[in-house]
Amino acid sequence: MPEILYDFGSGRSDPETFPKEALKNAVSRVLDREGLELTKYPGNLGHEGLRKAMARRESEREGVPVDPAHLILCNGSMQAVTLTAEALQVNHGDTVIVEEFCYPGTLSAYRGLKYDMVGIKLDEGGMRIDHLEDELKRLQNENRLPRFIYAISTYQNPTGFVMPKARRLEMINLARRFGVPIVEDNCYGDVHYDGPIEPAIYALDGDPNHIYMCSLSKILAPGMRLGYILARPPMLEKILARRFDAGSNTFAAAVVAEFYRDGIASHAAVANPVLKDKRDLTVAMLKEHLDDICVWSNPVGGLFIWVRFPDDVDRGKLWKTTQAAGVNYITGTSFHYKAVNAPYLRLAFGHLTREQIAAGVPILARLLKEARGSNEPRTFENLFI
Amino acid sequence: MPEILYDFGSGRSDPETFPKEALKNAVSRVLDREGLELTKYPGNLGHEGLRKAMARRESEREGVPVDPAHLILCNGSMQAVTLTAEALQVNHGDTVIVEEFCYPGTLSAYRGLKYDMVGIKLDEGGMRIDHLEDELKRLQNENRLPRFIYAISTYQNPTGFVMPKARRLEMINLARRFGVPIVEDNCYGDVHYDGPIEPAIYALDGDPNHIYMCSLSKILAPGMRLGYILARPPMLEKILARRFDAGSNTFAAAVVAEFYRDGIASHAAVANPVLKDKRDLTVAMLKEHLDDICVWSNPVGGLFIWVRFPDDVDRGKLWKTTQAAGVNYITGTSFHYKAVNAPYLRLAFGHLTREQIAAGVPILARLLKEARGSNEPRTFENLFI
Repeated sequence: MPEILYDFGSGRSDPETFPKEALKNAVSRVLDREGLELTKYPGNLGHEGLRKAMARRESEREGVPVDPAHLILCNGSMQAVTLTAEALQVNHGDTVIVEEFCYPGTLSAYRGLKYDMVGIKLDEGGMRIDHLEDELKRLQNENRLPRFIYAISTYQNPTGFVMPKARRLEMINLARRFGVPIVEDNCYGDVHYDGPIEPAIYALDGDPNHIYMCSLSKILAPGMRLGYILARPPMLEKILARRFDAGSNTFAAAVVAEFYRDGIASHAAVANPVLKDKRDLTVAMLKEHLDDICVWSNPVGGLFIWVRFPDDVDRGKLWKTTQAAGVNYITGTSFHYKAVNAPYLRLAFGHLTREQIAAGVPILARLLKEARGSNEPRTFENLFI
Repeated sequence: MPEILYDFGSGRSDPETFPKEALKNAVSRVLDREGLELTKYPGNLGHEGLRKAMARRESEREGVPVDPAHLILCNGSMQAVTLTAEALQVNHGDTVIVEEFCYPGTLSAYRGLKYDMVGIKLDEGGMRIDHLEDELKRLQNENRLPRFIYAISTYQNPTGFVMPKARRLEMINLARRFGVPIVEDNCYGDVHYDGPIEPAIYALDGDPNHIYMCSLSKILAPGMRLGYILARPPMLEKILARRFDAGSNTFAAAVVAEFYRDGIASHAAVANPVLKDKRDLTVAMLKEHLDDICVWSNPVGGLFIWVRFPDDVDRGKLWKTTQAAGVNYITGTSFHYKAVNAPYLRLAFGHLTREQIAAGVPILARLLKEARGSNEPRTFENLFI
């Protein structure tokens, strides 16, 4: 395997802003103060200090009170995704609604749990409400309404789209009309660059059936494996009843609670500008090298840029030549809920250096052009097919 | 709720031997050396350093080579228990074999996953092979052979029994004859006080269908949430295919790998004598205060003593009066695979002080006697009904 020199594949933050020294200091304080907590089991909800810190994080972002007793700490938000899907499933083959292009980890978990996925078309505002309504009607007629609607409504993965508040309210209305809970995955929450911050669905609707999940993998580090579910009773109890792992890591939770004891704003103020700068550079490089044949998203947060390329690109050839040149990305197919081959790729820009971005995009551009059957300019103006 | 003053309930190690200062030092070294690893995802197997340390732990105890590539780090061994049961299940209602009295966390997980549990009677050597054979024959005749046999064969919870090598070999033969894998939970492994150490089943049989699991919760601390599965291909892949949480905590794993970089023997040499001393004290107090009406196990490792008391004890009254007096324990019923009410209780002795043990057992003894319908001495000589 050739070495990957330009890894646009993995959705990770900037390694340089990882707060190594601050965490070292936090560990000393935590072990002195709470060392004995480590000799106990964490319980199903997990470390109280981190739940309080994350309730504060949510309250500060969303402007609503959040009860730490409604937070369930998880092993990253992927445990949140899996646990929720397990708790809501009644039978193998149950239906779930997802975005047509969606995070592969979630698709893989739902597939593994034997859910039948129904994908909803996306536009620049996220899930299209007209298509969501059509599919809910169809599924109701077929007597197999979905167990839930899964949506990454902010900085959607892979597209980077944000669902505007008005559309969130429409989605909430549809969910109520059909009696289907929304599972909102806000794992990129707080990785924000510019523009307004749209409210989370739980902040817009008191329906106790909606479930929210968030993570520290993107704003802090995935190796800490800290995410959480926000759920209100009786949904809270329903989820906990399916949890059998004796609770989440107290050590990591206690250290991160200490690190974020005064809120997450000061750390986000260091980490996000570095990412925003890389987003700007990536977009600038795309503009310089691919504007004639591609279009792409310009995300206001999160870690990904979604690129549409011409239909006449030989995708197998593109994959081979880019891998050989050390350029990694994730194919559009990987994100499609039915793994349909589609003329897209996703670029993650968070953990590369500026130099890697500046050198990698031109190579990708050249190989995209070489994998085409023509030299024609693109014939499309938007990201959707 | 009255305060619990004498908590014989929770199976935890001695808090005084928790190596706080050594972990602080390990954290500094780890963050300097491997800080950037935290900004990556751990992968399905988890931190390589801890896998190597745990492979060494297993090799040193069992005297066989163990490949770190066959270890799957988990969120405590309860994730190992759950993940394995999920991977081996085909349909709800599948059969699983367990010990008649078994760890409640496992029973609760299997119940939650909709397994049909079949319990095997225990004696001082663990699962009775005659009963296991009978049940396997019966289940084969009913065309519902179990998906696996779950056994805590060393320092069994709750009884403390150790299965001798000869019986392990008989169990392996039965497993082979009926084509049923053994899932061996050695979560108390290395919490050893005296007597020979019996070999793990994986060290006696190369059958790649057997699965082994172990933990750091008992020898180190449950708040670290570190356990692991040892499984050989293709079983390894089968288990990993059911894992959707993006891997175990790198932070805790890296720190503990550094702490155990020279093996676990030196830490065990500090932690185990303190526990052995508490076992001795608990047994001495039982002898002094309950010898006339009870019998109990004298475990050579692990954290529990299993106590059989006379049938005429009013168990409801006993629970109320002990709780009111601040004495906590786990009832026999909690361990029975069908929650059958049985005249047993389990005493955990690891995390109490010597003073608590010395004061708590006499109170328990008095309340046991007060909850009886007679003053007769016990009429039984062994632990089994």
